[in-house]
Amino acid sequence: MIKTITWKNNAVVLIDQNTLPQVECYVTCHRYREVIAAIKNLTVRGAPAIGVAAAMAAALGAAELARFPQARFRRNFYLVCDEISKARPTARNLFWALERMKKCLEEALRSGKPDPVGELVAEAKCICAEDIESNRRMGKYGSILLADGDKVLTHCNAGALATAGYGTALGVIRAAKAAGKKLHVYVDETRPVLQGARLTAWELKKERIAATLITDSMAGFLMQQRKIDKIIVGADRIAANGDTANKIGTYSLAVLADVHGIPFYVAAPLSTIDVSLKDGSTIPIEERPDTEITFWRKVQTAPAGMRVYNPAFDVTPARYISAIITEKGIIRKPYRQSISNLLKG
Amino acid sequence: MIKTITWKNNAVVLIDQNTLPQVECYVTCHRYREVIAAIKNLTVRGAPAIGVAAAMAAALGAAELARFPQARFRRNFYLVCDEISKARPTARNLFWALERMKKCLEEALRSGKPDPVGELVAEAKCICAEDIESNRRMGKYGSILLADGDKVLTHCNAGALATAGYGTALGVIRAAKAAGKKLHVYVDETRPVLQGARLTAWELKKERIAATLITDSMAGFLMQQRKIDKIIVGADRIAANGDTANKIGTYSLAVLADVHGIPFYVAAPLSTIDVSLKDGSTIPIEERPDTEITFWRKVQTAPAGMRVYNPAFDVTPARYISAIITEKGIIRKPYRQSISNLLKG
Repeated sequence: MIKTITWKNNAVVLIDQNTLPQVECYVTCHRYREVIAAIKNLTVRGAPAIGVAAAMAAALGAAELARFPQARFRRNFYLVCDEISKARPTARNLFWALERMKKCLEEALRSGKPDPVGELVAEAKCICAEDIESNRRMGKYGSILLADGDKVLTHCNAGALATAGYGTALGVIRAAKAAGKKLHVYVDETRPVLQGARLTAWELKKERIAATLITDSMAGFLMQQRKIDKIIVGADRIAANGDTANKIGTYSLAVLADVHGIPFYVAAPLSTIDVSLKDGSTIPIEERPDTEITFWRKVQTAPAGMRVYNPAFDVTPARYISAIITEKGIIRKPYRQSISNLLKG
Repeated sequence: MIKTITWKNNAVVLIDQNTLPQVECYVTCHRYREVIAAIKNLTVRGAPAIGVAAAMAAALGAAELARFPQARFRRNFYLVCDEISKARPTARNLFWALERMKKCLEEALRSGKPDPVGELVAEAKCICAEDIESNRRMGKYGSILLADGDKVLTHCNAGALATAGYGTALGVIRAAKAAGKKLHVYVDETRPVLQGARLTAWELKKERIAATLITDSMAGFLMQQRKIDKIIVGADRIAANGDTANKIGTYSLAVLADVHGIPFYVAAPLSTIDVSLKDGSTIPIEERPDTEITFWRKVQTAPAGMRVYNPAFDVTPARYISAIITEKGIIRKPYRQSISNLLKG
């Protein structure tokens, strides 16, 4: 079992996703700002994992404020949450987790709990455990969409490393395998940060799931050759109408899937859904540093001073999404309706 | 002026396209097998440049055989050409150039020329000079397709480095700039070998043409955002019906262009057209070593032992191609007819 994020001895332990796959090492964060730095520099990444890390960062922040009297503690806790919320802009789960932590504190204070920090630590651990449970449910629901012998394309890493464990898109693949289905997974390397080549490939090798690595630009050619039966990806934010922000390149895959008549699935927990946005047009798209494209590790890949555009995400219109797999079941078009029903239910 | 390939002091001098953009150095080949190695290891690449390199390799080979009596010289020259023809399988220009060299030899022998090797060297130099001239003509014809202010996407490198000089797709961009049009070029980095990031970016910086580097998977997102007005690429082989083999990823761009209503142009000399193939389905697609994907220079990018699929090219069906720009003019659908007319004319 891959341990993406753990709360251990009043610290947050993260597997270092920047050194994988060559080096499997762990980073221990004793202070909340270390977790913020880890989110920013991609030591931890993937929307659900960022949510869990944010909750744990908030718990660490609370512990750092424990010496203050209640009013100041509360005020400063909100400032800490504010600071954490600025770590990355796109993944909905980050904001969702912080809202839960604030609610937890309010409840602890209202009901006069003797140890609000303890309550917050417990809540962060609970968010972590719930995430794994959600992924297992998503896996169970989603695996019926995959048939024995399917060749499945995935983009970026929506695996155990992108979550507290098990994974969203890769969770569905894991569950299908556990159900006895033989799959072959095509893995987009996912430039610029290579989460596919480094992380998804590593997870699938560990799991002994048959997989082939390709560059992102090969996916269309494989679809043309009928080598892809299904596509499944994760999500960073889903608007009320089903428009989905995910790793840059997802939009192109969805359009190509549509042209080739290939089902295109998104697997994501409800914490990824942002009903405050009526469609995807207002999802904030993070732009990352140029050096992600112009260097690989310390090796330069482009002329010095070259102008670069590096959006980390794109938005796939809901019409291209065949189904969204959640921990409460599979939903289909029209998503405004099916999402609304799901959240009510 | 970038000197991609030069015949100098009975040797072939190649700019080393593997060390660019960091290091601009030149490789001198005194023997034909050194040129074959340079074609195989991508020191020289790009269909028209491979054609010129193959012609010069044949001339070097002829010089190496000069001591033999005529019958043996002729027989061995054909064996040399055969060996050169196996350097890479997809680019039509390689085979076209070797056919021209064989024809040149036959003519020299038939007409009793005193120095057949000299004739072959002259022919190789002529193929080189003609290529530059073709590119300038393509530029002149193609530039009318680009409007002032256009944002133009290109993939891989179809520039001076892919040819004897000036370039096919980049030649059109150069000509449009020379005609006073202001363009902004978006450059796909072009994984796995990064010909876009390393070579096209380098050429455009040298030329002071405004350009922005993106990863291949961003192109669709840019089209969705209406940031791309036109797409122009080169070609490695064009079948009689217009189906076009080009760098892997071209097919996806063409499909995305179609969905977004963006004109998609191919610029290539007639030597790229292979009328012996009625459509693109039988164009041989080269598969390159796994390490192109699993390493960047000496830095690993994927888990050791990961299975990889690495086709270097894909085939874009003619229906996605808005026009093909050649040195004899611009042709449009139906290509079987327009190609046939062009070659007759």
